[in-house]
Amino acid sequence: MDELWKTTLAGGKTTTVLIARGLPDLSHHLGEYGRNVMWVFDTHTAKFFKQLPPNNIVLESGETNKNINSLLRIMGSAADYGMARDSRFIGFGGGVVCDMAALAASLYMRGCRLTLVPTTLLCMCDATLGGKTAIDFQGNKNLIGSFYPADEVLVCTDTLRTLPDKEYHNGMGEILKHALLSPDTELYKFLLAHRSEILKRDQQIVEKMLELSLAVKRFYLEQDPTETKGIRQMLNLGHTFGHALESISHFGTFSHGECVAWGTCKALEAGMEAGVCDKGFGESGIKLFKLFGYDTDYRIGRGEWLEYREHIAHDKKKVDGKIRFVIPEKQGSCLLMPLAETMIQHLVIQQYS
Amino acid sequence: MDELWKTTLAGGKTTTVLIARGLPDLSHHLGEYGRNVMWVFDTHTAKFFKQLPPNNIVLESGETNKNINSLLRIMGSAADYGMARDSRFIGFGGGVVCDMAALAASLYMRGCRLTLVPTTLLCMCDATLGGKTAIDFQGNKNLIGSFYPADEVLVCTDTLRTLPDKEYHNGMGEILKHALLSPDTELYKFLLAHRSEILKRDQQIVEKMLELSLAVKRFYLEQDPTETKGIRQMLNLGHTFGHALESISHFGTFSHGECVAWGTCKALEAGMEAGVCDKGFGESGIKLFKLFGYDTDYRIGRGEWLEYREHIAHDKKKVDGKIRFVIPEKQGSCLLMPLAETMIQHLVIQQYS
Repeated sequence: MDELWKTTLAGGKTTTVLIARGLPDLSHHLGEYGRNVMWVFDTHTAKFFKQLPPNNIVLESGETNKNINSLLRIMGSAADYGMARDSRFIGFGGGVVCDMAALAASLYMRGCRLTLVPTTLLCMCDATLGGKTAIDFQGNKNLIGSFYPADEVLVCTDTLRTLPDKEYHNGMGEILKHALLSPDTELYKFLLAHRSEILKRDQQIVEKMLELSLAVKRFYLEQDPTETKGIRQMLNLGHTFGHALESISHFGTFSHGECVAWGTCKALEAGMEAGVCDKGFGESGIKLFKLFGYDTDYRIGRGEWLEYREHIAHDKKKVDGKIRFVIPEKQGSCLLMPLAETMIQHLVIQQYS
Repeated sequence: MDELWKTTLAGGKTTTVLIARGLPDLSHHLGEYGRNVMWVFDTHTAKFFKQLPPNNIVLESGETNKNINSLLRIMGSAADYGMARDSRFIGFGGGVVCDMAALAASLYMRGCRLTLVPTTLLCMCDATLGGKTAIDFQGNKNLIGSFYPADEVLVCTDTLRTLPDKEYHNGMGEILKHALLSPDTELYKFLLAHRSEILKRDQQIVEKMLELSLAVKRFYLEQDPTETKGIRQMLNLGHTFGHALESISHFGTFSHGECVAWGTCKALEAGMEAGVCDKGFGESGIKLFKLFGYDTDYRIGRGEWLEYREHIAHDKKKVDGKIRFVIPEKQGSCLLMPLAETMIQHLVIQQYS
């Protein structure tokens, strides 16, 4: 188990990021916590263990289970197991499991210890770092949640071997987004130079890519842990356009990463049209997404517009009732700005010739 | 509206405590927030308004409604009203309303603005300051919650006029406890000197008493906002003994403040028996509670012991599986220590002669 770095985040909590050298290394580390722990799996990730550790709960997998019932099941089990404030919740899974385990850890007795073991690329590069916890509520994604950074995040790329291609693709979307947001071009160049090894999941290359991607996230988080200064919000690049697409397709057709990839390209296009985004940066950014197989040309049908607009209007990032989009200017630099509805319409709706 | 002071608490959030000069002053202040607010009342406190403001929810009053369903109703209404991250939750009521409004504010979109208007003495002197939010869960008091200090706490003693005597008595328990915990004897002496005006609810005397009581709480909070350093825990004086009594009487027979008063006396007795508490301080402390009408001699029946012990064992303040009691030494000074079961038994069970 190698320590990558420590970072101090929301509420002054310190998160240590560790890289496990394989599953046995990971098991050994977690085993040392003994019995005062509550394990949270889903039906997929429970399979990593021949025999499940005691004090566990196995949730149904999938975004539709990221709800209040699952959250209450976790906390109810913790109460049944007699967990106390010095107990540790271990979330072992993708974003759904990690987000819910973290929310439960933040609420149970007003906050327990928390270890997250992300098992998907999306979760490794993004969700487990930064302390955003959440469940979906009344049809709104992540409407209920808290800021509660994990005490430790354990990255073990062994768990990526069995990940379906679609899930891997899901994670790559956020990593490409980080490449645009990075204050330097190291990640961007690394992605271009190692495209085929990345897609083949070469373990050393993937670890290096994750290190670079996590460093970008860390850069924004440390400046604005609870997203109150307009800095952390830059990480939402692609999310307003993307979440609305995710919502109208009922979290089915496209993965989160695909929606973010698409949304990021929309933000680049909007930036170029509004004259705020450097044209060379915008076009090569969209090309990067195409190169990794994203459908950047996708458009919603005319009949979907009203529902799409409705979801945009419910975005969390509203100030004084106005939606502000993250719009790239150039490498590592974005603006927060409103967009005219006609512009949004023009960018997202299928055009008939 | 006079500002009493500001204090920086959990998560670096600043709470401003303001004293309203009557209900019209209070209404005027709150009215300035306009429409981007979500009001939380209960059936009692809704009566303070001839016409309720828009965007409100009225909960059933009482501790039995401090549950997940009420919490979900608040957050569901907030979603229906289209509240965003820059919206403000206004909790207008006693501890149940304020704790739930605050928990909802902390969770909705990962945290909105929060104003608390405590309408009971207990809530004014204690619950609204310090950011502890909670609901009861699976029969356990305050099992689920967060640390989320209010942006502002508005104290308006006008709301105390219609408070039932039992409720006023409820609040006095915590204030007497604060008198023992204070680093100086100002509050202690004030209580002895103004006993009759306090019990008659003389408005100026009550405001002064609240100022002194809140200052004690602030003294502990600022040193340990999230109760991780063993300092804030001193405020739990009387709570381990008291909560267990509250639980076995199913939150009916005794009020929270009565249980805390009783529990504080038990802690003083335990301290004297264990030889850690100054005898003069211990005995005069118990006398102070008697003077304000608390039944410090109450004992549970033998048949209630097993259930009582069970509730003690489930206390949140466990470290490595051991319950630690807050035991007074002298003015403004307590220890955190375990107590032998025989000692607890001896202190709380009815003795037959």
